[in-house]
Amino acid sequence: MRNLVRPALAVLAAAPAVLSAPARAQAAPDSVAWDIVSGLTTEVGQRLAGSEAEARARDWGARKLAALGFREVKVEPFTIRGYQRGVDKARITAPVPQMLAVTALGYSGATADKGIEAEIAYFPTLAALKAAPDGSLGGKIAFIDHAMRAAQDGSGYGPYGQVRREGPSVAARKGALAVVIRSVGTDSHRNPHTGVTSWAEGVKPIPAGAVSNPDADLVARLVKLGQPVRIALTLTGRTVEGLPSGNVVADLPGRDPALPPVLVGCHLDSWDLGTGAIDDASGCAIVTAAALRAQAAGKTLRTIRVLWAGSEEIGGFGGEAYAKAHPERHALAMESDFGADRVWRVQTRFAAADKPLADRIVAALGQMGIVAGRATAGGGTDVEPVIAAQKLAVVDLGQDGTHYFDLHHTPDDTLDKIDPAALEQNVAAWAQVLALVANAEAIASAPAGAGD
Amino acid sequence: MRNLVRPALAVLAAAPAVLSAPARAQAAPDSVAWDIVSGLTTEVGQRLAGSEAEARARDWGARKLAALGFREVKVEPFTIRGYQRGVDKARITAPVPQMLAVTALGYSGATADKGIEAEIAYFPTLAALKAAPDGSLGGKIAFIDHAMRAAQDGSGYGPYGQVRREGPSVAARKGALAVVIRSVGTDSHRNPHTGVTSWAEGVKPIPAGAVSNPDADLVARLVKLGQPVRIALTLTGRTVEGLPSGNVVADLPGRDPALPPVLVGCHLDSWDLGTGAIDDASGCAIVTAAALRAQAAGKTLRTIRVLWAGSEEIGGFGGEAYAKAHPERHALAMESDFGADRVWRVQTRFAAADKPLADRIVAALGQMGIVAGRATAGGGTDVEPVIAAQKLAVVDLGQDGTHYFDLHHTPDDTLDKIDPAALEQNVAAWAQVLALVANAEAIASAPAGAGD
Repeated sequence: MRNLVRPALAVLAAAPAVLSAPARAQAAPDSVAWDIVSGLTTEVGQRLAGSEAEARARDWGARKLAALGFREVKVEPFTIRGYQRGVDKARITAPVPQMLAVTALGYSGATADKGIEAEIAYFPTLAALKAAPDGSLGGKIAFIDHAMRAAQDGSGYGPYGQVRREGPSVAARKGALAVVIRSVGTDSHRNPHTGVTSWAEGVKPIPAGAVSNPDADLVARLVKLGQPVRIALTLTGRTVEGLPSGNVVADLPGRDPALPPVLVGCHLDSWDLGTGAIDDASGCAIVTAAALRAQAAGKTLRTIRVLWAGSEEIGGFGGEAYAKAHPERHALAMESDFGADRVWRVQTRFAAADKPLADRIVAALGQMGIVAGRATAGGGTDVEPVIAAQKLAVVDLGQDGTHYFDLHHTPDDTLDKIDPAALEQNVAAWAQVLALVANAEAIASAPAGAGD
Repeated sequence: MRNLVRPALAVLAAAPAVLSAPARAQAAPDSVAWDIVSGLTTEVGQRLAGSEAEARARDWGARKLAALGFREVKVEPFTIRGYQRGVDKARITAPVPQMLAVTALGYSGATADKGIEAEIAYFPTLAALKAAPDGSLGGKIAFIDHAMRAAQDGSGYGPYGQVRREGPSVAARKGALAVVIRSVGTDSHRNPHTGVTSWAEGVKPIPAGAVSNPDADLVARLVKLGQPVRIALTLTGRTVEGLPSGNVVADLPGRDPALPPVLVGCHLDSWDLGTGAIDDASGCAIVTAAALRAQAAGKTLRTIRVLWAGSEEIGGFGGEAYAKAHPERHALAMESDFGADRVWRVQTRFAAADKPLADRIVAALGQMGIVAGRATAGGGTDVEPVIAAQKLAVVDLGQDGTHYFDLHHTPDDTLDKIDPAALEQNVAAWAQVLALVANAEAIASAPAGAGD
């Protein structure tokens, strides 16, 4: 088949107007994407993994996708180990009383209802905490003041995120009573950033919270005064096994149902402090509106399947469940889970044989001012398991993340943060790519490490 | 005396370098202003009127002023009707559950500890609420969705602030069970803006809260869905009589102690959600640092007196107490209570005979790029009572308030919001003015309505 594809693509390369016709037929903004973000944030709100609200979000999503003309709309249930938030409170008790804006991290250990109160051991960085002698934190609350810096491509989330993912385990191993970190976030508001922590094997969870950046600034200034700083901390949330979650999966059938589908993913769950507008209602809005736009002038050759994954935030359960439930062959996978700011970069992962298709994608997006990056596409949490299992081709549309970590996992993740014009640019870019890949007659496997 | 002043001023007018020498001698930034803002926010924190924290702020202020070389440092106590915050909670219960970020307004009525739950009556504006028939709000929570717009000169706070000051009384009169307003603020964060409300005579207080702008957006969208919107509201704070408060007053003596002093005011209390950095630690920092800078090259002719007023936020009690306690003649009064952004405008109120002095002030500030406004200076809450009692001359240095109401009365009023360079520009502008007015040999009374 591959030899058949190339000439077809070559023809299209010579006639870009033909190639982009489906997208251009709908180039005027439509309301699908906005309706999804607005609907999920307004009519459902926060959708914590494993919660009753997440179940309502699945119902909402299934109804919405059916109303939009998707077929084979299915809710595919699974269960998870979840985190149920309790009371989150913190204050400085010495050298002066001060309130702290705090949130528990996902899978935090719990304090008693009356909380705990202890002196802090202050660490400016995660490295400094790691360098502390074993057992040196007995009876203390470890405070990790490691400040995140913004980056357009979001690349800081890997290393800075380790403060949240790894820091609590390190503190627990060294005997800390509890741990409080500076939020992994780039804003200056009194809204702490939650997110999941990961307990290393054999480590007993301790209460683990994050304070807002201005609160961490305050702690740092108090530490500089030279007197002991004490914190009273109440975090009563619980880790619970066997909570119900699920994915919503739906198809826009292609002309040849026998061909492996193109999979586009996002996640339906959100953290509970905000309403999950940029994380990740906007992703579901973008992939869904783009799929419809790619078929606006008629069916694509291949089916386009949307995956609104459940329980991404707490550990990527939805993506794992999808890969297990869907061993059938896929053609390619993509994901949108980095907010709603403009796409500025494209990266791909194709087999060498599909370089012409990759080039066509880069060329089409180049006309929108989107540049080609040098790295290999990876997909994202919700599609990585199926990508890994099937060695799928991947396209990553990189969004501007300069301000993403201002809002990420905070109460401020609300609808007003989404710029309708930027959302539309995402849909337009995605529709360009989907029109190309869903009309490709063959797409080869692309082992990890392959790339253009 | 006045005839003596003019020639002196005329000489100075011909030699501006001489006039501004005291300020220029210290033109490099000093640390006094920053130390005061940082110290008050770090070592004291929130300083709610009538609270134990406000008492600690008075102690801190008196120690600080003495250490800076001020004389006659006095704490002048008075008592107030205050508001003690309780539990503030709100959530939407129908048509879907959603959390709301809420704060009680000062002097709010209290709900029972378990709160109340009722359908809202939605009003897009204060005018719409006023137009509702009497008695039409029985059993309902009035929701006033009146959105504030930003203005450089802060002039929107007058009319928009009426939503908070007057709205609750109007709702109570029409039979509302409680009232919730969209915050009087211009930001998009989940941090509600508190502030005092004013109960009209004969009106029994009802629970009165404010939700953040994104929360008000959400309520408006839910109202548009067409189903009843219900809110559960818990606001358990109490109005308490006879709470201790006080002013801190201190002098930088002039060469002639018999001459009436120049009074520079700010307020020491803050709302309790943030740490009162821009409202109004920065004001106390600016007036105090500028007084010192005006005397850096030697004593001014007149004494410069600083007033760090207590209990401004809850009703201007400190300014009233100062005017009563200080019937002795003053020369002129000024206040800084509009954040720490740059001074862009000067307005004055002088007797016609002092027009040359007013002109010198305008000319000196013009060299810093500060423009003359057309209105008459008024001072501000902390100095208005003494201005009114003594018909004092006034100089207003207007700061850029474009972003002031992003932070005003919210948890976000913290030290990181202050730009040290802008703070320094304030001190420099104030020092210019103080060097002029504190060296003026005579300053006449300036009845309200007088102006340049």
